[in-house]
Amino acid sequence: MAKERGATAVLLISCPDQTGLVANVTQFIHANNGNIVHLDEHVDMQTRTFLMRLEWEIEGFWIPRERVADKFGPIAERFAMQWRLCFSDGPQRMAVFVSKQSHCLHDILSHTSSGEWNVELPLIVSNHPDLESVARRFGIEYHCIPVEQDARAQAESRQLALLEQHRIDLVVLARYMQVLSDDFVSRYPNRIINIHHSFLPAFPGAKPYHGAYERGVKLIGATSHYATAELDGGPIIEQDVARIGDKDSVDDLVRKGKDLEKVVLSRAIWSHLEHQVLVYGRRTVVFR
Amino acid sequence: MAKERGATAVLLISCPDQTGLVANVTQFIHANNGNIVHLDEHVDMQTRTFLMRLEWEIEGFWIPRERVADKFGPIAERFAMQWRLCFSDGPQRMAVFVSKQSHCLHDILSHTSSGEWNVELPLIVSNHPDLESVARRFGIEYHCIPVEQDARAQAESRQLALLEQHRIDLVVLARYMQVLSDDFVSRYPNRIINIHHSFLPAFPGAKPYHGAYERGVKLIGATSHYATAELDGGPIIEQDVARIGDKDSVDDLVRKGKDLEKVVLSRAIWSHLEHQVLVYGRRTVVFR
Amino acid sequence: MAKERGATAVLLISCPDQTGLVANVTQFIHANNGNIVHLDEHVDMQTRTFLMRLEWEIEGFWIPRERVADKFGPIAERFAMQWRLCFSDGPQRMAVFVSKQSHCLHDILSHTSSGEWNVELPLIVSNHPDLESVARRFGIEYHCIPVEQDARAQAESRQLALLEQHRIDLVVLARYMQVLSDDFVSRYPNRIINIHHSFLPAFPGAKPYHGAYERGVKLIGATSHYATAELDGGPIIEQDVARIGDKDSVDDLVRKGKDLEKVVLSRAIWSHLEHQVLVYGRRTVVFR
Amino acid sequence: MAKERGATAVLLISCPDQTGLVANVTQFIHANNGNIVHLDEHVDMQTRTFLMRLEWEIEGFWIPRERVADKFGPIAERFAMQWRLCFSDGPQRMAVFVSKQSHCLHDILSHTSSGEWNVELPLIVSNHPDLESVARRFGIEYHCIPVEQDARAQAESRQLALLEQHRIDLVVLARYMQVLSDDFVSRYPNRIINIHHSFLPAFPGAKPYHGAYERGVKLIGATSHYATAELDGGPIIEQDVARIGDKDSVDDLVRKGKDLEKVVLSRAIWSHLEHQVLVYGRRTVVFR
Repeated sequence: MAKERGATAVLLISCPDQTGLVANVTQFIHANNGNIVHLDEHVDMQTRTFLMRLEWEIEGFWIPRERVADKFGPIAERFAMQWRLCFSDGPQRMAVFVSKQSHCLHDILSHTSSGEWNVELPLIVSNHPDLESVARRFGIEYHCIPVEQDARAQAESRQLALLEQHRIDLVVLARYMQVLSDDFVSRYPNRIINIHHSFLPAFPGAKPYHGAYERGVKLIGATSHYATAELDGGPIIEQDVARIGDKDSVDDLVRKGKDLEKVVLSRAIWSHLEHQVLVYGRRTVVFR
Repeated sequence: MAKERGATAVLLISCPDQTGLVANVTQFIHANNGNIVHLDEHVDMQTRTFLMRLEWEIEGFWIPRERVADKFGPIAERFAMQWRLCFSDGPQRMAVFVSKQSHCLHDILSHTSSGEWNVELPLIVSNHPDLESVARRFGIEYHCIPVEQDARAQAESRQLALLEQHRIDLVVLARYMQVLSDDFVSRYPNRIINIHHSFLPAFPGAKPYHGAYERGVKLIGATSHYATAELDGGPIIEQDVARIGDKDSVDDLVRKGKDLEKVVLSRAIWSHLEHQVLVYGRRTVVFR
Repeated sequence: MAKERGATAVLLISCPDQTGLVANVTQFIHANNGNIVHLDEHVDMQTRTFLMRLEWEIEGFWIPRERVADKFGPIAERFAMQWRLCFSDGPQRMAVFVSKQSHCLHDILSHTSSGEWNVELPLIVSNHPDLESVARRFGIEYHCIPVEQDARAQAESRQLALLEQHRIDLVVLARYMQVLSDDFVSRYPNRIINIHHSFLPAFPGAKPYHGAYERGVKLIGATSHYATAELDGGPIIEQDVARIGDKDSVDDLVRKGKDLEKVVLSRAIWSHLEHQVLVYGRRTVVFR
Repeated sequence: MAKERGATAVLLISCPDQTGLVANVTQFIHANNGNIVHLDEHVDMQTRTFLMRLEWEIEGFWIPRERVADKFGPIAERFAMQWRLCFSDGPQRMAVFVSKQSHCLHDILSHTSSGEWNVELPLIVSNHPDLESVARRFGIEYHCIPVEQDARAQAESRQLALLEQHRIDLVVLARYMQVLSDDFVSRYPNRIINIHHSFLPAFPGAKPYHGAYERGVKLIGATSHYATAELDGGPIIEQDVARIGDKDSVDDLVRKGKDLEKVVLSRAIWSHLEHQVLVYGRRTVVFR
């Protein structure tokens, strides 16, 4: 969406459908002199669930931003809304977890270092030392925390301390090949984005490109989703596929897949940063 | 969008942006007991133009459908809106114009004869006799009206008489290889859908597949747009492309292009029938 | 590939790799005055398997077509080749099996009735009476053979008799929602083409669009494959996907999926008819 | 194609078609104990032009690599072939030209620094100082050579000297927004790869995303081609498109386009490095 504008506020809402929802919410904005620049509302008719994203300009809005949540609270309560309020202007703070492969990390750094994303990236964490030189090139703190078979809890507590210390809002698993504990995941609900190198639910788990080769599929895929306790089972934010050739070896699939993974992951990060993603059961609605 | 619902009304609105637009419109629906099932609103920041599609359930709405326009009029006037009101339940009446190629016509007939589209198709017009047998198979009136070099006006007046007689709402040019006069087009503004066999604006005019072959492009395209006085220049409703092979001949492009053309055209027809298309300058916003 | 040519012969070969394979085969063609118009050869380095498709012009070739197999036999034997010899000019005979949905059948009829495919379609078989009117429109024999829970064998023997009687080369399962027995399948090895309405191996079996909706995927798929004893497990000929919207209901997925299914199936049929498909283990190489 | 193999030699051939071409070439390889791993041959029937790519293993081949061209010469002469001989194992030397935008450069550096491409990148040239820090991070020489309105010749002679000094095989214009002279281009025939940010031939020249926005297209594209004297007119190596939203502003197109440009450019570079590209008139055949 366009950037030829000032800062905006975003409301993401889901609740049981009933008449008057849109009217009440927009009336709240209008009565306080807000100008709505995007409103996208949709009722899931199978479950009669109301889903909405609303974005309005902060400038001229009569309620100061720190009081908006308080003022909106009664409306939310009246309609039993699950809701989230965000502002477009504050840079979010992101940490990236990697293992040995650099393609997703490089793509993220390309976006952050050029200023395209409104984000700060102070921290890279890995279970291997391989990508330290990449972090150093870009002047970013790199912590190598090996994850031993029986000492995941210990590793995770070090990781969590770093996240807290750096006041991280968003964790990106950029081909970090480790499974996170339920406890870790529950600390950052819908704030940990993973990339899986297949078109889920096909080929979950390890070695999806080998699986794709053996099954003889004609397209490979990549899936970016929020991490949950269920491996490769979280709400999907973005997916895409690429056509492969029948003469391609597994190595070719891996190579072509890298270009796909990085693009899919970066698109998912963008949607998250723009507050476009509404998680809803095991699904997401991405309001573009 | 879902069909697990009763009939709905749709409002498509564009106007200069100002605060209160959404609130006023949704208040109008709410005050008359309407339940909004989809609302998609967006401000084009470059021109500060407000664009909205609003859909609500008719059942329970206190204003009878024949009076909605009257009642909404004052709001529209106050905000200088261009607007259109449609209802989802009445079948629209469609005419199809063809020349000699049958693939788009067959695809349309596949959709209409299976009842997938809420549409009546009483009339097929052609400048050639070739496809009369297709029309006869499906029990549809077929009129062969040759278009002579210097007698287009005569041919068009016969065509217009047929459209009127059959109370046609929508004309589909399904690879009808003739140019329509400005006068003809102006009688059905944004109600004539054409399919052009290229990714416009590349390769306008005749023989686009030959052009694509000679230029050595790696993808071919198809474009469905509303017909206007400018050849291949009307507002685009839908476009898509297909990858071709470097060994493909022009004949291969033609063959692969057919599958693309028919799908792109049918998608554009669907969007039109669902009242999703808002024409806005030379562009469209298709609210899906 | 181009049609600006006379009839051609096609050899499809797979065997363990060794030096001299291409030289020996092309020498055989050349020594008998054959002009090769396409040759595509590839060694699968993981299994050191040689895979080749060779196409040459019949006109001027010194060996009459009925003797080519005999003459080529010794070369094939010497290199332990699995091979198939086909000619481009004879129309193949195709039967289509359907249930209640017409979209794939209509798309096939669009291709056959326009003469685009070099094929004869004398027979449509269904377990339901619903599509008889479609068959009648196009003047094709329609047999309704219900498949009762405990009498599949009986139904299949009637079906097989029809296939034999009509000298069918290729059976197309155009959304025929029944599982065929191993015995049936083994009678037409790599000559039964099925369309499954998902991106296999995701969502095999029944109701894939419901599965796709529940999992919240962002793309739906379709897969055309040769039928084997394993349900939805045969060698894949063609696959494709389409992006869906987050607001789409299951009904929308079904509707969008239909356009995808028919196109994927028709592409697979085309590749088969053009003798482009080499089955090789559980995979195919489609030489385009 | 697979990398589970030793070094290979590649022959790319085009010539007027006649019988015996494949047999003669493959006989040459076979007689000298070469093992062919890929052979892809095709006759363009419209111009009766023979096009072939042949790849064989060097190990065990009886002719030493420096003598292959000499030995093959007589065959080439006899059939009036245009041909090129390449070897897979030597790293090629690449220079990258940029202006101010970093996304394509970053993507190239991601591939080169991870060792994915068999290439050396000793030189980055720009008409602006902006990306010097990027070059420095990766330890690559950066030369800022401003291109003044009336002094292009001077700038180019400095650039050419650098290319020579670094023994550059391939020049990549990674969003280098300057037009090169015919003289410059003719020094590196089919060895200068450009990326244009549109689906050519649509929107050539400056500001293609503005053009796309104004025309209201539904997809944006990117085209990678060899630079020739004709601006945006050289033989296309790779193209792709991405779907945009009707609510996207020009800024959104620019942002989405960047991800497309870098991927299309990197794919084209890969095909060039793998000796897959045969230029043939104004077209290319990319043998994958």
